[in-house]
Amino acid sequence: MSKHKRPEVDARLSKIEGHVRAIRKMIQEDRTYPEIVHQVAAVRASLDGVIEVIVDDLIEDCAASAKKGNFISDTVLELQQVVASIR
Amino acid sequence: MSKHKRPEVDARLSKIEGHVRAIRKMIQEDRTYPEIVHQVAAVRASLDGVIEVIVDDLIEDCAASAKKGNFISDTVLELQQVVASIR
Repeated sequence: MSKHKRPEVDARLSKIEGHVRAIRKMIQEDRTYPEIVHQVAAVRASLDGVIEVIVDDLIEDCAASAKKGNFISDTVLELQQVVASIR
Repeated sequence: MSKHKRPEVDARLSKIEGHVRAIRKMIQEDRTYPEIVHQVAAVRASLDGVIEVIVDDLIEDCAASAKKGNFISDTVLELQQVVASIR
């Protein structure tokens, strides 16, 4: 199982959690809907960034395993499952 | 400024915040990337749901104002700004 970029994935999710909390504060402060939606769209883009990091990690793992002559079928399966989730 | 559905928007964002926290816990628990991406994609769909609620609120506000014979230009502008953010 690929793990190399897990700390980066967690750091990004931590920022996203804080971002969502900040949007809730905007609601309490009666900020306009366009301002709120702008931030919601930014969080959505950040989630796409998390998925990109995970896909990168799996691809790098796949390449490293192949270089060592190891089986890559498990990592390829993980990649296929990831792609199926985001379609 | 439209406000009717703000409590629903906040309730949905509160759930999303908890969902992101739960995904971070999955990382600590060494769950697989496909499991994590499945949940990240679910959060992304929930964010789309938040935007739908906001657009609904603005459209209802627009219709109610028009029915009363009030100007709707402010709400229409808000709708245009929201659509520009999510394109």
